[in-house]
Amino acid sequence: MTVTVAKGFVAAGVVAGLKKNGNKDVSLVVNQGPLKAAATVFTTNRCLANPVLWSKQVIADGEVEAIILNSGGANCYTGSEGFQTTHATAEKVAELLGVSAGDVLVCSTGLIGDQLDRPKLLAGVEAAAAGLSTENGLQAAEAIMTTDSVSKTAQRVSGAGWAIGGMAKGAGMLAPGLATMLVVITTDAVLTSDILDATLRNATRVTFDRLDSDGCMSTNDTVALLGSGASGITPDIAEFQRLLTEVCHDLAQQLLTDAEGSSHDIEIAVTGAASEVDAVMVGRSVARNNLFKAAIYGNDPNWGRILAAVGTTSAEFDPYNIDVTINGVSVSRLGQPDQPRDLVDLTPRKVVIGINLNTGTEAATIYTNDLTHKYVTENSEYSS
Amino acid sequence: MTVTVAKGFVAAGVVAGLKKNGNKDVSLVVNQGPLKAAATVFTTNRCLANPVLWSKQVIADGEVEAIILNSGGANCYTGSEGFQTTHATAEKVAELLGVSAGDVLVCSTGLIGDQLDRPKLLAGVEAAAAGLSTENGLQAAEAIMTTDSVSKTAQRVSGAGWAIGGMAKGAGMLAPGLATMLVVITTDAVLTSDILDATLRNATRVTFDRLDSDGCMSTNDTVALLGSGASGITPDIAEFQRLLTEVCHDLAQQLLTDAEGSSHDIEIAVTGAASEVDAVMVGRSVARNNLFKAAIYGNDPNWGRILAAVGTTSAEFDPYNIDVTINGVSVSRLGQPDQPRDLVDLTPRKVVIGINLNTGTEAATIYTNDLTHKYVTENSEYSS
Repeated sequence: MTVTVAKGFVAAGVVAGLKKNGNKDVSLVVNQGPLKAAATVFTTNRCLANPVLWSKQVIADGEVEAIILNSGGANCYTGSEGFQTTHATAEKVAELLGVSAGDVLVCSTGLIGDQLDRPKLLAGVEAAAAGLSTENGLQAAEAIMTTDSVSKTAQRVSGAGWAIGGMAKGAGMLAPGLATMLVVITTDAVLTSDILDATLRNATRVTFDRLDSDGCMSTNDTVALLGSGASGITPDIAEFQRLLTEVCHDLAQQLLTDAEGSSHDIEIAVTGAASEVDAVMVGRSVARNNLFKAAIYGNDPNWGRILAAVGTTSAEFDPYNIDVTINGVSVSRLGQPDQPRDLVDLTPRKVVIGINLNTGTEAATIYTNDLTHKYVTENSEYSS
Repeated sequence: MTVTVAKGFVAAGVVAGLKKNGNKDVSLVVNQGPLKAAATVFTTNRCLANPVLWSKQVIADGEVEAIILNSGGANCYTGSEGFQTTHATAEKVAELLGVSAGDVLVCSTGLIGDQLDRPKLLAGVEAAAAGLSTENGLQAAEAIMTTDSVSKTAQRVSGAGWAIGGMAKGAGMLAPGLATMLVVITTDAVLTSDILDATLRNATRVTFDRLDSDGCMSTNDTVALLGSGASGITPDIAEFQRLLTEVCHDLAQQLLTDAEGSSHDIEIAVTGAASEVDAVMVGRSVARNNLFKAAIYGNDPNWGRILAAVGTTSAEFDPYNIDVTINGVSVSRLGQPDQPRDLVDLTPRKVVIGINLNTGTEAATIYTNDLTHKYVTENSEYSS
C-alpha cells in the first residue's frame, strides 16, 4: 500500500531501461485531491542536481499534482541538457495528467555526471501514467531503489479516519542535511501546505537529519509530503505530527539497517548537553569517526576513540567529566576507565553508545553504522 | 643522525617492555645547550592526554632541557594516577640529568584508557639516560613507533653552518590540528624561543596541519622544536623558516605514505579560492569524504563525489563554475562533464585532484589517503 494507503493517491513503478540490471526505474505518485497541498525538504548541499533545482521552483507555491522519480542516474552536473531532461520529464507528466508542469516535482538518483537517456525516460513516464493505481504503491517503492537491498515503506492510520503512507530509497551516503535518499510521504488528512511544511521540518529534524551513516551528503536528497485531503478529516495537529514523525523514524531506521555493507547499527545517545545543538554536534562527531566505526566493526569497545571524537567539538563540557557507556556498560567516568572493557558484548547488530556530558539537560540521538570491509568494497566498485 | 644532526643534542631509544612486541618504546632527547630554547604545538583536541597537560606547563617559559617519549600507551583518560606517572617520568629524567622536572617535556602514544606500567617506564628512562649519545638518533626515532612500518627522520644542513634534524611517528589518525603523531625537531642555530615558536607555527600550518589521512584527531599529538644554539651561528630567519618548513614537509609526507593500510597518496590542490581558509576547507571536505576515498581505492575517477563534497562547504564559489581535474584530466567544467572519465589513469600510487573554484587567487593543498580494506582491517583489529 505504502504511499497509496492515504486516500486520493495513485502510484506506479515501471521499467524504463535506465538501470542496466533491468529493474524498475521510474516511479510516479499522483495526488487526485481534492487538495493539492505539499511540502518538501531538500539536501543542503550547494552542488544541486537538476531535479532539485527544478523542484525548488515547483514547491514555491505549496501546490503539487504529482511527483515523478527515476533511479539509474542522478542528473547532476549534466548542464543545461540535463536540466532540459528534467523539464521535459515534468512536461510529459503534465501532458499525460492534464495538469501544469509547474506542479510536478521531479527526483532522480544514481551516478553524477551522466546524461539520462531522455527518450527511454519519457517512454517510462508514459508507461507509469498508464499504470497508475491505488494498488501499485509497492511497485513505486521498488522503482526508486539503487543499491538498496529491500524497498522501504511505512504507514500509520489514525483512529480518526486519516492516514499517512511513505516510501524511501537510500542505502548509504546518509548524512545530515538528509542522505542519498528520496522519500515520498502522502496523507489524506485535510491540512494546508504551511502546516505540512512545519510538521515535515519538525519530523525530518529528529529523524532523517539524525542519520549519519557515512558523513557524506548527496546532491539529490528530497523528502516530499503530499496532502490530498481526501479523508475529509482535519486532524489534531499534535497527533498528525506524532504519526508523521513515526513514519519518518520508521523509514529512517530502514535506511540505517540497509546502509551499504554495514554489520552494526549504532545508536549514539548524547545526554546532559547544554543544548540540543551541542548534543547533535557531539553525536555526529562520533558518528563520523572512522577509527571508532572500524573498532565497532571489529567488536572492539575502544572508548578512547569516542572521547577523542567528542574532544574535537566545541560543545560545552568538562573533558574530564564525561560518562561513556557501551551497550550499558560504564566504560569511562571522570576522565578515567570505569568498568573493564571486556564486559562489553559487541556481537549483537545493535550497539548503543551513551555519552553523558554532565552539563545540562538536553539530549539527541544520532544513528550511524560501522565501517566495514563490505562498505569499502561496495563504494570502491560501484560508481554512484 | 636525525635529531642528533644538530650539535648540542644527544639521544637514546631503549626497550622498556611497555610494548607487547618487545620493540623499543622509550625515547629520550637531551639538549646540552648552551641555549635551552624551545617551542611546541599541541593537538587542538579538548580531551587531552596527561603528558600533553604536563607539557603545556613545561613549555610556558620557553625553556626545555629534555624530551622523554614513550610508545606502548597514550596515558590518556587515566585520571590522577596517570598524571602522576607523567610527573614521575619527568622527575626521573630531571634527577638523572640534574635539571628541573619543570623543564622536561613528556610525550606518550598508544592505547587510550590504560595505565602505563610505571616501574617499567622509569627503568626505561634510566636505561635511556645511560645510553645517551650523539650516535643514537635513529634508535630514538625507532622507539616512538606504534603502527608505523618504518621510522621517520629528516634533516637539513645550512651552508651557513647550522642544522635542523627531526624524527616523527604516526601512521593514521592524521587530521588537522596535527595527527596521531609525535614529532621532535632539533636545531643548533642560535634562536630565541619566541622565534622558534613563530617559525614552528608557520611550518606546521602548511605541513602537518594539511595532512588529513582519516579525519580523526588524536589526544596526544605534539610537535616540539628544541634549540641548543651549539653552532654559535645566528641564522637568516627566512632561510631557517624555509629549511624548518622543508623538514616538517618531509616528515609529513613520510607520515602520509605510511598511513595505515593506504594504497594511494592523494594530493588535493585547491586553487582559485577567495581565501586560504576557503581553500583548506574545500580540500579537507574532499579529504574526509569516505565515498570519494573508497572510489580512489577502486581506481574509479568518480568526480561527482568530489563535487558533492565541495558542495557541503561554506566556501565562496559558484557551484556550476568549478573545474575538476584528476591526474591532469579535466573531468568536469561549468557544471557538466568535460573529458571522458575513462581517460584518467588511477593505477599509480600518487593521485592529484585539482579543484579550481574560479573565485579568487588563494590556494592550498591537502594530503590524504584512500579508504581501503586494509585500513578497516588495521583499525578494527588494533586497539589504539
